[in-house]
Amino acid sequence: MQPLVFQSDFGLGDGAVCAMYGVAESVDPALRLFDLTHDIEPYNIWEGSYRLIQTISYWPAGTVFVSVVDPGVGSTRRSVAALTKGGQVIITPDNGTLTHTLRLVGIESVREIDESVNRLPHTGEAYTFHGRDIYAYTGARLASGKIDFSGIGPEVPVDSLVCLPIVDPESADGQITGTIDVLDVRFGSIWTNIPHSMLKDMGIKYGDRVQITIRNDTRSLYRNTMTFARSFAEVFVGEPLAYINSLDYVAVAINQGSFARAYNIGTGNSWHITIGPSPY
Amino acid sequence: MQPLVFQSDFGLGDGAVCAMYGVAESVDPALRLFDLTHDIEPYNIWEGSYRLIQTISYWPAGTVFVSVVDPGVGSTRRSVAALTKGGQVIITPDNGTLTHTLRLVGIESVREIDESVNRLPHTGEAYTFHGRDIYAYTGARLASGKIDFSGIGPEVPVDSLVCLPIVDPESADGQITGTIDVLDVRFGSIWTNIPHSMLKDMGIKYGDRVQITIRNDTRSLYRNTMTFARSFAEVFVGEPLAYINSLDYVAVAINQGSFARAYNIGTGNSWHITIGPSPY
Amino acid sequence: MQPLVFQSDFGLGDGAVCAMYGVAESVDPALRLFDLTHDIEPYNIWEGSYRLIQTISYWPAGTVFVSVVDPGVGSTRRSVAALTKGGQVIITPDNGTLTHTLRLVGIESVREIDESVNRLPHTGEAYTFHGRDIYAYTGARLASGKIDFSGIGPEVPVDSLVCLPIVDPESADGQITGTIDVLDVRFGSIWTNIPHSMLKDMGIKYGDRVQITIRNDTRSLYRNTMTFARSFAEVFVGEPLAYINSLDYVAVAINQGSFARAYNIGTGNSWHITIGPSPY
Repeated sequence: MQPLVFQSDFGLGDGAVCAMYGVAESVDPALRLFDLTHDIEPYNIWEGSYRLIQTISYWPAGTVFVSVVDPGVGSTRRSVAALTKGGQVIITPDNGTLTHTLRLVGIESVREIDESVNRLPHTGEAYTFHGRDIYAYTGARLASGKIDFSGIGPEVPVDSLVCLPIVDPESADGQITGTIDVLDVRFGSIWTNIPHSMLKDMGIKYGDRVQITIRNDTRSLYRNTMTFARSFAEVFVGEPLAYINSLDYVAVAINQGSFARAYNIGTGNSWHITIGPSPY
Repeated sequence: MQPLVFQSDFGLGDGAVCAMYGVAESVDPALRLFDLTHDIEPYNIWEGSYRLIQTISYWPAGTVFVSVVDPGVGSTRRSVAALTKGGQVIITPDNGTLTHTLRLVGIESVREIDESVNRLPHTGEAYTFHGRDIYAYTGARLASGKIDFSGIGPEVPVDSLVCLPIVDPESADGQITGTIDVLDVRFGSIWTNIPHSMLKDMGIKYGDRVQITIRNDTRSLYRNTMTFARSFAEVFVGEPLAYINSLDYVAVAINQGSFARAYNIGTGNSWHITIGPSPY
Repeated sequence: MQPLVFQSDFGLGDGAVCAMYGVAESVDPALRLFDLTHDIEPYNIWEGSYRLIQTISYWPAGTVFVSVVDPGVGSTRRSVAALTKGGQVIITPDNGTLTHTLRLVGIESVREIDESVNRLPHTGEAYTFHGRDIYAYTGARLASGKIDFSGIGPEVPVDSLVCLPIVDPESADGQITGTIDVLDVRFGSIWTNIPHSMLKDMGIKYGDRVQITIRNDTRSLYRNTMTFARSFAEVFVGEPLAYINSLDYVAVAINQGSFARAYNIGTGNSWHITIGPSPY
């Protein structure tokens, strides 16, 4: 019996998530059911992909994740189960949800869900709710041991997975340029794709002053210097700081304020951030 | 030991739901506790009634639901437990919360909660929190087998249940007219009370163009033609569609947009929707 | 095996809570995990302290609470575990989160977390996420019996705990003056620090008319008379009432409306409320 963890863009305001739980409970009442989040912005596959890597490595090998952010439901997009190099399984539409896991965790093998056997019985006419009828059902059967990984369906090549475009951070002229991957929405911090190691390679240490520049395409939105701090407590309330987030990447915040809201910062590949030593 | 599923309009922002969980855990630590939703609009009994039928049939027979949307707490309204024809039990104030279950699932028998025995001890002075002191406590005792259904209290007639007014969909002049029952809030779809079978009877098939008209009382808010599609993926992003929702009723949406927000559509018996073949 | 209950200001919108759950599940898959709330306003220690007393006494002795509202993460603030007089344990940064529990429930003894042993292995470089690496890990080890209370770390004096300032309600000239501690956000009620017993001592009984005055510092925001009612159902929809909340304190509401929004009422020690017999 393995833990079963759900993620979706359904929200918790209606019965959609509860219906998935009921399906899982009906498959096996001994299952332990958990949530990653159901507040993924509707249709935002990138965010779903990112939240998976924020959490997956803290769960034991064998854990089954069901992630349903599925703008293409009813199209010909495949449904897959991916076995990560850490031993967890992710069940999801093959639409880019596995982008970050493939790149940062690694995927051992992938199987396409055979819907002729892995579908809640008597739901053949429902075309819009695969979360309940296919993903939750298959996840529950896998987590409870009713099927094993090979029972998902035929193996498909790992490199056939749909991936979203990712831009790598680059180092040039004593500056590192990356993108803003995601917001820590509640605290208004911005999380970049620049790993801690790149700062170290440039000789930047905790306590140093750094200069941060943020551009959206060609428009400049922010340029200032701040402390590269171990934690929020090292700067004054209201002061900006650069720090290393829980995934070991560079993040920028205002202590007890919202950096994202203060400067109208968004996320995605058009949002560029440059970090380097302070010129002063 | 049966699963115990909670629904309320309490929200998750304070300790009200957690206090109910603590009461249940104190009754029997082996109980498995779940949530339907706690984001029912405050005092919206109709929405609470609807969310129950959206989920209840996906849970095993024996599952106990506790639903607390209770504007009349402290009045003389009864507290009841209803055994559905599917074998689940719903514990709730008798205020209309069972309207859809009675009509669409069926109720086998009803018992009125005898509060002299089914009340958390030492809470005799608390008049405002029956969710915790009566409903959660009684639900936990029933789900854990400490009492059986007859231990709830005396049987009362099924037809004595309070029901909200429901308007049936009607077919006339080659058009079907129904009401808008509920929103799929997060995705902005509108869910009607028109069953798939009525479209079939009129000869409307997937892929056909249909005309949709929406009125609030006498005011016309929307008239347009659209595809009756199997799934969102069959229309362009930004295009409206009619489809069959997860409960087998007609729904209307904009692919990756919000139909409800685009046209300021609300819910209830004053919101009428008419569907028929496209005149073009 | 004891229940483990989480509270934080992280929200449920990203993976932060799920990472804590994964850590706990990795410590012992037999643990039963629950949430108090994760919607504490960011950095609002007072609210975190209040939500604990709203719920803790409904959970069995032995229950372990992990509360992470931690603006000082990375500073020299201590991490502690407090054993309440009710037998529950609260694991939290020592920043005022235990204020109400100390005063209203009582604390038996306190231990400072020894982070050299009570820290998720291989997380020595993460300075910003003690919720996951220290609090969830230690809570899971305690709730699962892997350590006992003395395994937390060295005992420290109960009176060394950081406490937020609390103003006591006072009775004078036939009036009781207190503060507005917290909102019942979803229903817009205001919860005061005036216990039911003070009203009784003044001879005010259910059904009596009372006069309520609300001031923010020196500014007067509200003065009116209303019924002191057992429950909302005793007044008309839209009518204000004073009542006794689920913690046995005086609260003020509008039946099916929002008192807090209607009069722009906030919370904290600068928000004074006076209650006395109606002069009419």
